[in-house]
Amino acid sequence: MQRIAGTEGGAEILRHQLTTAWEICLLDEGDDLDRDAGLADCDALIAMSFGHSALPAMPKLKLLQLPGAGYEQIEFAAVPAHCTVCNVFEHEYGMAEYVMAAMLEWQIGIRGMDAQLRQGAWRAGFVGGTPSHGELMGKSVGLVGYGHIGRAVATRAKAFGMQVAAVTRTPGNPDDCVDHIAGMDHLGTLCGEADFIVVACPLTEDTRGLIGPAEFRLMQDHAVLINVARGAVVDEDALFAACSTGTIGGAVIDVWYQYPDHADSVQLPSRHAFHALDNVVMTPHASGWTRELVARRWAVIADNLDRLAKGEPLRNVVQASE
Amino acid sequence: MQRIAGTEGGAEILRHQLTTAWEICLLDEGDDLDRDAGLADCDALIAMSFGHSALPAMPKLKLLQLPGAGYEQIEFAAVPAHCTVCNVFEHEYGMAEYVMAAMLEWQIGIRGMDAQLRQGAWRAGFVGGTPSHGELMGKSVGLVGYGHIGRAVATRAKAFGMQVAAVTRTPGNPDDCVDHIAGMDHLGTLCGEADFIVVACPLTEDTRGLIGPAEFRLMQDHAVLINVARGAVVDEDALFAACSTGTIGGAVIDVWYQYPDHADSVQLPSRHAFHALDNVVMTPHASGWTRELVARRWAVIADNLDRLAKGEPLRNVVQASE
Repeated sequence: MQRIAGTEGGAEILRHQLTTAWEICLLDEGDDLDRDAGLADCDALIAMSFGHSALPAMPKLKLLQLPGAGYEQIEFAAVPAHCTVCNVFEHEYGMAEYVMAAMLEWQIGIRGMDAQLRQGAWRAGFVGGTPSHGELMGKSVGLVGYGHIGRAVATRAKAFGMQVAAVTRTPGNPDDCVDHIAGMDHLGTLCGEADFIVVACPLTEDTRGLIGPAEFRLMQDHAVLINVARGAVVDEDALFAACSTGTIGGAVIDVWYQYPDHADSVQLPSRHAFHALDNVVMTPHASGWTRELVARRWAVIADNLDRLAKGEPLRNVVQASE
Repeated sequence: MQRIAGTEGGAEILRHQLTTAWEICLLDEGDDLDRDAGLADCDALIAMSFGHSALPAMPKLKLLQLPGAGYEQIEFAAVPAHCTVCNVFEHEYGMAEYVMAAMLEWQIGIRGMDAQLRQGAWRAGFVGGTPSHGELMGKSVGLVGYGHIGRAVATRAKAFGMQVAAVTRTPGNPDDCVDHIAGMDHLGTLCGEADFIVVACPLTEDTRGLIGPAEFRLMQDHAVLINVARGAVVDEDALFAACSTGTIGGAVIDVWYQYPDHADSVQLPSRHAFHALDNVVMTPHASGWTRELVARRWAVIADNLDRLAKGEPLRNVVQASE
């Protein structure tokens, strides 16, 4: 029987989903990894961080499985040569649903129609004569980044008859869901042409402040910026200025500039008063954080452990063993 | 040059879009058809109603083009034998967008998250720990009716990884977007299994009150009924009872039981207080009534007139000439 240690919950799910025999060492969130006596014997470790504390030698470690996508807390130099590092996605579906929901509601405005009709007023719609809302069909969406999230948005946007463009560091890999794909140097063109600009790229030193004053000036005055990536990819001051002065139509913002330390914090998400703007939709970094995500991620993790036990190729390899 | 008469607006659009030569006789909305001297010479007529007033003989009439989909105001026996009757759709795209927007928002709840975060509260999402919302992926949608609207919903629902079932009078014509299609006698099964039940069938004597107390009792307690067809397809009392007592999860209602006579009416949409329920979304018969619809319909009408002038096959034939 092989042995796995994990610093995150999900052991109960693992127990039900694993089809190969594993001994599960569940580490408390507060435990230091190096205080666990069993760690040196583990074949696999589930953790979002690695290499930042003094670890025992792990001569049997063959898989470092991240329970999330981001590997900024992994010190790759500290990973043993015989160990493969894998991450897990599955958040792209929820995020794409959020993006589509936001674009649809921006065009249709069900919320406003509901509020009006609840007062007994048939001023819009069938009775009022002139149509009060628009469609997504035929509109264009520009994706900044074309990874898992961008592709999930593109698949759904295409089913609505939208025009889909993308800029990415790796434009050499197009698919049927994108009408136009280009390198990051075409960001300006994308900003100028898209009705909706969706930020879905990783935050790196190259992408910090990627969407700034110059990009907002290129956008159409009805354009809507949707950020589901990381707040800092979009310049905070420029975003507030663009929304508050009407340079663009508005924004849907899920990722922010200020985060609270704990759940009950009253920390505002930005130093600017986005909450005072009615052309902004604001959500608390929740676009991909769905009930289904957790179960789906642990199913992928269980599958990877089964693959390891059976000697099959692992999924979502970030760094292969030597 | 051929001659067309129309009782609806759109002449300006026709003038720009026609590629063949037509003389356009624009009739005022208030005109009786039989008072227009030029009518007897027309080759085509654009009207939503026909046969209910004393018309002059129309020896040249080859096309009766409806500017909408419903032909309940056409007296087919009065249509000359040498005249083809055509209608026009194009509303299915806006309606499908409305249905998808409603289902997505039901799962995600962007509206509620926005209201909470505007108060500075990071209680949901990334910071709060437990996910606060669900996904559409993997959920099931049951379509009551599988015509233009049902198919447009199915195409989009499939792109979200939903399970799609449909009941229809004509189940012999499945496509890639529906997982299971059956006759109307399977309505009960569909009601019992679907997370979302979308009513998208015509109102006929067979479908009046089609969704009644028995059907609501079969539905799951989280099921959501979405009606974009006609109010009377769903029993008014049963719908209110199902929503207000929690027999089902709720409803999204675009079509109603009481309509106002004029735009400023304060007529309530139902004799029940749907406006007092927070598990109901209510809109004023507006799902397909988009700005884009009008232009798209007149483009189809212009194309049909061009086809008539060039002797090509007409589109959307409701009744062919003899």
